[in-house]
Amino acid sequence: MKGLGHVVALCGGVGGAKLAFGLTKILPVDQLTIIVNTGDDFEHLGLHVSPDIDTVVYTLAGLSDRERGWGLAGETWGFMSALRRLGGDAWFNLGDHDLAMHVERTRRLTAGESLSAITGALARALGVTANIAPMSDDPVRTIVVTDDAELGFQRYFVGEQCRPVASAIRFQGAGEARLSEAARAALTRPDLEAVILCPSNPYLSIDPILAVPGVREALARTDAAIVAVSPIIGGEALKGPAAKLMRELGAEPGVLAVADHYRGLIGALVIDDADAADAAALAARGVVPLVTGSVMITDADRARLAAETLELARTLRK
Amino acid sequence: MKGLGHVVALCGGVGGAKLAFGLTKILPVDQLTIIVNTGDDFEHLGLHVSPDIDTVVYTLAGLSDRERGWGLAGETWGFMSALRRLGGDAWFNLGDHDLAMHVERTRRLTAGESLSAITGALARALGVTANIAPMSDDPVRTIVVTDDAELGFQRYFVGEQCRPVASAIRFQGAGEARLSEAARAALTRPDLEAVILCPSNPYLSIDPILAVPGVREALARTDAAIVAVSPIIGGEALKGPAAKLMRELGAEPGVLAVADHYRGLIGALVIDDADAADAAALAARGVVPLVTGSVMITDADRARLAAETLELARTLRK
Repeated sequence: MKGLGHVVALCGGVGGAKLAFGLTKILPVDQLTIIVNTGDDFEHLGLHVSPDIDTVVYTLAGLSDRERGWGLAGETWGFMSALRRLGGDAWFNLGDHDLAMHVERTRRLTAGESLSAITGALARALGVTANIAPMSDDPVRTIVVTDDAELGFQRYFVGEQCRPVASAIRFQGAGEARLSEAARAALTRPDLEAVILCPSNPYLSIDPILAVPGVREALARTDAAIVAVSPIIGGEALKGPAAKLMRELGAEPGVLAVADHYRGLIGALVIDDADAADAAALAARGVVPLVTGSVMITDADRARLAAETLELARTLRK
Repeated sequence: MKGLGHVVALCGGVGGAKLAFGLTKILPVDQLTIIVNTGDDFEHLGLHVSPDIDTVVYTLAGLSDRERGWGLAGETWGFMSALRRLGGDAWFNLGDHDLAMHVERTRRLTAGESLSAITGALARALGVTANIAPMSDDPVRTIVVTDDAELGFQRYFVGEQCRPVASAIRFQGAGEARLSEAARAALTRPDLEAVILCPSNPYLSIDPILAVPGVREALARTDAAIVAVSPIIGGEALKGPAAKLMRELGAEPGVLAVADHYRGLIGALVIDDADAADAAALAARGVVPLVTGSVMITDADRARLAAETLELARTLRK
């Protein structure tokens, strides 16, 4: 797609990775930077696990398991069965192949390499040339505050299957975290034309990125169009707890709640045909709606939605 | 087997583990302590690998791969294939199931547990009740000195397939290492009746144990019979570089070289029928020979050789 300058995608888990995949199919490598949430990162069994980075890398590499919705296709589970036999901490599944990523990442972090450098190297090893920038090389940890406890993201998401009622979400370390070099460079490019908030969980995937000092400032300063793609379709999230969290945090799950969450930030919102009835209310809020099929099943769906989202951004810029 | 007091086995790799298995079949749990070499231990990919401990644990648990001669039966290799794909350091094979042992051991070491405590806990998780004592909880690293380089044991053994010519072997850290509590307690028991030097590589598996301060002293002081089982049969090792090392270090590979290596330490040596011709020369050296079938193929072989070795020790004590 010619005519656009640089594009930045802010991206979290599976839905975000799918749109990022679509963007890589229609943009030259040097025209796109994918900034990925690292608030889900955690230390497990002594290993540094970066779930959102791996989801993006595996998706762009064409290695994701499309049925299970996470991890690698053709994964095996010998490590987990042996770990359970040893009485190890087995609440978080680590596939045998996936484990190589965590072991290698941890080894290189311990050796002093940055998460950014490691992410680039491991992605390239899997044939991924896209510019993937962790939001920060410093630790930021998403904490879900519930009545009973403050849960690290993976404890909440995997360990507790998102069952506890959230009263707040905070991003431990975000205040002191430095935006990664690649993320900062992309967000402050003079030729930045579009920033896409991918259809990722606003609270758990996009907000941590926005919480890193410098991101909101850069977005306030840029002339680029800022467009979100709603992760909520017909009042529900395709995957994950976005709708449940909206209810718990006092919003009516829907595309209007997405627009309200991103109020003052986005100029347009891509919504699904199922939510066409809300288009007028979006427009009344000053958010340009684009109504389209936003469920990405095939690679063609991903590329089409990416193209439509970029066209919308180009329209805003005119 | 009644009548004997406590038995200590000094043990390294596969051959040693087989005899240790035999000993567990004929002795009550509280009558046997297996002291295991940790000179082969190393840090790999950030994980603490203890090959000899794992060989003993897996063998006693009945989980060893008997065909391949190391590691777990039914092992899978997804991690290694993914690690190679990532361009990781893949010269040392870590099976998917085996990896759980290394990850869990490393996690617990980092949390401050001793190698002794971890070894006991992981062995029990696999149903092994035998007393397995790492020779030390402190790091000792076997170094093979060659003309070109000083090679860590695994680099020599696995990485270089034992090809370099050794001029010396040293045990880095041994001088400062403390004998593990369980090893010290076993070696200084008043009812210690037999110390068995298992058919392990004398240079690479038994010598590191003997190099830990306190071991030779305890063996010099004990009234127990000290009996070795030759790892050399007909001038060759069944497995590993023992015979090659003997040549390189100036000895003629054979049971007499084993006896000479353990001179002043052992009172008897169990040798294979193939080496019966050397029995008289052993006796002339003051070492009581026992000639028997020493190749352990079946579990019954292991138990029989263990029983014959203990009977020999009992005879020495009379």
